[in-house]
Amino acid sequence: MTEFIPPGTRFVDLPSPFAMRRGEALIGARLAFETWGELNAERSNAVLILPGLSPNAHAARNAGNPEAGWWEDMVGPDKPIDTRRWFVICVNPLGSCKGSTGAGSIDPRSGEPYRLGFPDLSIEDGAEAAAHLLKSLGIERLDTLIGNSMGGMSALALLLQHPHIARRHINISGSARSLPFSIAIRSLQREAIRLDQHWNEGRYTDQNYPENGMRMARKLGVVTYRSAMEWDGRFGRVKFDAECREDDPFGPEFEVERYLEGHARRFVRLFDPNSYLFLSRSMDWFDAADYAPAEARGEGSDEDSRVLAALATVRLEQALSIGVHTDILFPLQQQQQIADGLRAGGADSRFLPLPSPQGHDAFLVDIARFGPAVHDFLSA
Amino acid sequence: MTEFIPPGTRFVDLPSPFAMRRGEALIGARLAFETWGELNAERSNAVLILPGLSPNAHAARNAGNPEAGWWEDMVGPDKPIDTRRWFVICVNPLGSCKGSTGAGSIDPRSGEPYRLGFPDLSIEDGAEAAAHLLKSLGIERLDTLIGNSMGGMSALALLLQHPHIARRHINISGSARSLPFSIAIRSLQREAIRLDQHWNEGRYTDQNYPENGMRMARKLGVVTYRSAMEWDGRFGRVKFDAECREDDPFGPEFEVERYLEGHARRFVRLFDPNSYLFLSRSMDWFDAADYAPAEARGEGSDEDSRVLAALATVRLEQALSIGVHTDILFPLQQQQQIADGLRAGGADSRFLPLPSPQGHDAFLVDIARFGPAVHDFLSA
Repeated sequence: MTEFIPPGTRFVDLPSPFAMRRGEALIGARLAFETWGELNAERSNAVLILPGLSPNAHAARNAGNPEAGWWEDMVGPDKPIDTRRWFVICVNPLGSCKGSTGAGSIDPRSGEPYRLGFPDLSIEDGAEAAAHLLKSLGIERLDTLIGNSMGGMSALALLLQHPHIARRHINISGSARSLPFSIAIRSLQREAIRLDQHWNEGRYTDQNYPENGMRMARKLGVVTYRSAMEWDGRFGRVKFDAECREDDPFGPEFEVERYLEGHARRFVRLFDPNSYLFLSRSMDWFDAADYAPAEARGEGSDEDSRVLAALATVRLEQALSIGVHTDILFPLQQQQQIADGLRAGGADSRFLPLPSPQGHDAFLVDIARFGPAVHDFLSA
Repeated sequence: MTEFIPPGTRFVDLPSPFAMRRGEALIGARLAFETWGELNAERSNAVLILPGLSPNAHAARNAGNPEAGWWEDMVGPDKPIDTRRWFVICVNPLGSCKGSTGAGSIDPRSGEPYRLGFPDLSIEDGAEAAAHLLKSLGIERLDTLIGNSMGGMSALALLLQHPHIARRHINISGSARSLPFSIAIRSLQREAIRLDQHWNEGRYTDQNYPENGMRMARKLGVVTYRSAMEWDGRFGRVKFDAECREDDPFGPEFEVERYLEGHARRFVRLFDPNSYLFLSRSMDWFDAADYAPAEARGEGSDEDSRVLAALATVRLEQALSIGVHTDILFPLQQQQQIADGLRAGGADSRFLPLPSPQGHDAFLVDIARFGPAVHDFLSA
């Protein structure tokens, strides 16, 4: 498969073998990352960003790549994550296809891509890979760990496995455990890919790529990443110009359908379908309750109390958990739970619900609300 | 295609030709229905039920069919819709595949199934067919018109075209116009069917049936018909017995996935895929604002005010619009809008939001809440 690595991406070699949580190990694996700003002499000004499922490490323009990044308005000089003050690191998640080792990478044992032979990927594996990157950069403790969406899970996994690794934490539209609605959506996305005959049990090629499955998966993602409220105002019932429509009785007719189509076109063939499957399933599996101390696992303890007990093992000074009222994928009570759990661990922990209309993906676009929240926390 | 007509279904011939709103006409078309109870001498005790997209006319057991129906706990002697008092009629929507003429029916001009040659179906066509049924039964005015989900749209279409056709109206989880989130979901459902190679531009057979597309469409439907809140309590993160799992690395693993799978299996091959496409698209197209009087269409009039002005042309005595807090497909403000619009027409109109956890489909299962609401309205 074609790789999708932005210019200027840097790499760190992971220990080899790199043991995976659910068994097996990666040989000669690497993690892709980019940085902004300068690490100070005390190595105390590092901010690590763990992104969602699909982004690469290029959060914003930098010396290695002048193109705008996926969080361009958030990261940079005088921006909310001010790269004149902070040494900012962003990774491409382990298991992805944008530079880090994933299902599309060559398995050195066979000389062929891993495809479905990639080891079962868990959120924790990505967190361990990020921990190794910090070590290789000589960073013992982050000033702030930031995680968005899937990256919010990865951040919690990192904190649960390394309770002292960050002084502060911002969890954005995150979740301490996947709940059945989001599992159902991701299950359908994976099914759409797997049902595409071109997927061929993971043995697709550039010429025989599961384009329809990936289109469905992406559209279903976008439907759940945004919100009905946003779309009511943005699209209403507007139809697009009849002349632009294909001659197809059930083809797209409303603007919202064209919008989904556009998102799908910009995604397919730029993401490796097998990597998508592995990353998607890793989110289903993640459950902070797995880290509850023994005394919180007794009979009669409920799931939520185990999640809280697990989060209470993390040793942060300050935490901020931001959520959005219109998020149907990771609903607000999940960010509340994160804030409550981290507070129980002794952190000065705040829950910030924002009225953004853009749903789960608001942090990517509603910089007017997310920018000040992140800026104020970092400046405190 | 196999037809799916319950025993005991009755039929009324529609006028032939039966002109369709968007052009063309059906020849020799019929509407399937069932009845319960007796029409009184004054012909004043009729209650018509217009169902959602998928049900047949068999709402409950009756003389013609002793099997339980899809609204068994709601319709019957001493039940909320008390068939000892009311003469209850339920139709299978025009365009469906459970007895009424639809895309799977034989086109008498060709002797072959219509398939994609079926005329463009609109919600209004189904309403006109229901109006004809009432006429043929000698019913000039219904005591109460009840519409659920898509049937709520059909009921509004019937009232907008025949403002005096009912004395009272119960609209359940309905909508006066499709909004972009629900359009997007239905568009994805249709796309899943159309992408299935077995769909074959509508020329599938029983042997080559678009099973995967229909499975995806149904699962996506179920995800949006129910609610995350219900599933959190019902499934949580429970996995089903590993021994029951197929040997498939990305196959179902969580109970919620098995639940979706079960729903899909009970649906595919029992619904005609082309009928599904036509009915689904008719919902996207429905917009009560099309019926706004000229004076409400002036420049500067917004969409919502046109919807309200249209609904205000309906002449009901009483109306009840019921919605559910957890409905993501037809959100609560849409039922509020229906109640407001009908009130503007002079009806004693009430909006009843219910705290059912089951989302859009709550009316099918939360009889504890819906039963008394419907009973009390009918008894008033």
